[in-house]
Amino acid sequence: MIVYLNGEFLEKEKALISVEDRAFLFADGVYEVIRCYEGQPFQLEEHLRRLDGSVRAIRIDFSDSGTIGQVAKRLIAENRVTKGDALIYIEITRGSAPRVHTFPPTGTKPNVYVATMEFHPKQHQLENGISVILVPDIRWLRCDVKSVGLLPNVLMAQRALDEGADDAIFVRDGVAIEGTASNVFGVFGGVVVTHPKTNLTLAGITRDVVLELCAKLGFPTREAPILESQLSRAEELFVTSTTMEITPVVKVNGRAIGDGTPGSITRRIQKAFRELVTSL
Amino acid sequence: MIVYLNGEFLEKEKALISVEDRAFLFADGVYEVIRCYEGQPFQLEEHLRRLDGSVRAIRIDFSDSGTIGQVAKRLIAENRVTKGDALIYIEITRGSAPRVHTFPPTGTKPNVYVATMEFHPKQHQLENGISVILVPDIRWLRCDVKSVGLLPNVLMAQRALDEGADDAIFVRDGVAIEGTASNVFGVFGGVVVTHPKTNLTLAGITRDVVLELCAKLGFPTREAPILESQLSRAEELFVTSTTMEITPVVKVNGRAIGDGTPGSITRRIQKAFRELVTSL
Repeated sequence: MIVYLNGEFLEKEKALISVEDRAFLFADGVYEVIRCYEGQPFQLEEHLRRLDGSVRAIRIDFSDSGTIGQVAKRLIAENRVTKGDALIYIEITRGSAPRVHTFPPTGTKPNVYVATMEFHPKQHQLENGISVILVPDIRWLRCDVKSVGLLPNVLMAQRALDEGADDAIFVRDGVAIEGTASNVFGVFGGVVVTHPKTNLTLAGITRDVVLELCAKLGFPTREAPILESQLSRAEELFVTSTTMEITPVVKVNGRAIGDGTPGSITRRIQKAFRELVTSL
Repeated sequence: MIVYLNGEFLEKEKALISVEDRAFLFADGVYEVIRCYEGQPFQLEEHLRRLDGSVRAIRIDFSDSGTIGQVAKRLIAENRVTKGDALIYIEITRGSAPRVHTFPPTGTKPNVYVATMEFHPKQHQLENGISVILVPDIRWLRCDVKSVGLLPNVLMAQRALDEGADDAIFVRDGVAIEGTASNVFGVFGGVVVTHPKTNLTLAGITRDVVLELCAKLGFPTREAPILESQLSRAEELFVTSTTMEITPVVKVNGRAIGDGTPGSITRRIQKAFRELVTSL
């Protein structure tokens, strides 16, 4: 597998970074994950725009996201991930420098890493839905920045597995905020509801696509907090992300949502999404 | 400079980690910084015990902290940092593995990095004190775990510099919690007050030493939250850490604390601390 690191295309095993890289030392970096369908990056511009937003938010001096798109396309070709599903991973860190909390000297170059990999969607989960547990949202207050500071997500995703569930949903102040790597949607009285874009949530690309699809399908939508106490009354529940697409949630803390199977609105959004990505 | 990485002693420039290291990808690692005085690690056992606590808290399978002490001592000798001040940096990550949020396969070895470096204490700050700004505590809710997820600390330390201050103190829900890399102490009515050990603060090693010194010096202490609204009434204020030792805070958001110079209790604790480290 060939990856890209700071201007070079090389075997992944040879892609090595300094122990003074600031992501390694401080989680001082941001990332993106982009889905490819049959070799076509999905929502590439939107992801690169969000990447620009992330580097600006944490003031990394990087303005070369245009190049990243080219790099990703070359990796797709070189690694021959042009059939089926694949992912592009991009990480930009504040560079390598002796360990001091404040920004490194002017002129320190960001470290730029891009990789592609085959991806195997969890068809079983897409079809039958997943079970989730609710966990306290212990994350920082800038979840709108796609930083590599994902330890709380790691710990809670693992806790879900350990407890026999598929994933976890973060709850803060009584609100179901998002999954460990996804946005959360609920259907209440036929209205498709998801958390508004705030500092507590990532502005999901798939989330935006789903809101657009709902408009086309004639499903009313509302961007509003979903209370933990409302979850049991949800007619349907699903999560969205680049890797999970639209994945139904059929169980929360062991209790069935609706009749315990994926709902009809969820199904119709899934179908519309499938049509969208196959029409690319 | 020789460093240690996964069993090998090698030049820092040759100490390279995989782009699949989980600290690089997820901030999935913990660290320690230990002070050396004249080649002697200060509070080594306490730091290694805290390191054990951190790896346990995030469930990294690492139980070899005894070896780390030996490694550190060898690095001190090999790098000849046996005169004056030096630091030992230790980082343990959950290892390198293809990027999946949940824990990597059983048998994935942690990455272990240890380095020593010369250290130049900021004498001017120790003598004359520092100015700080108050910033919102945007960090996660497990600040008791010494994880490498330090991006909020990086951003706020930099904001302080940009605003002409020396450091920042995090405020959460009206409470002055801690500095970007230090514990906060205030003197109120002659009582030395610092935040209790909770999930919102790091259990500072220097903090503990200071509480012990206060007991010896006959200064009453109290572990209680210091409200932001109380700060202007503090007779004295100081921060403590491995690198800052006991550093007086003489200005908060531009307003002088006490008469704007380091207070007498702070001075006496500094003196007792200096005697302690020179008696090693």
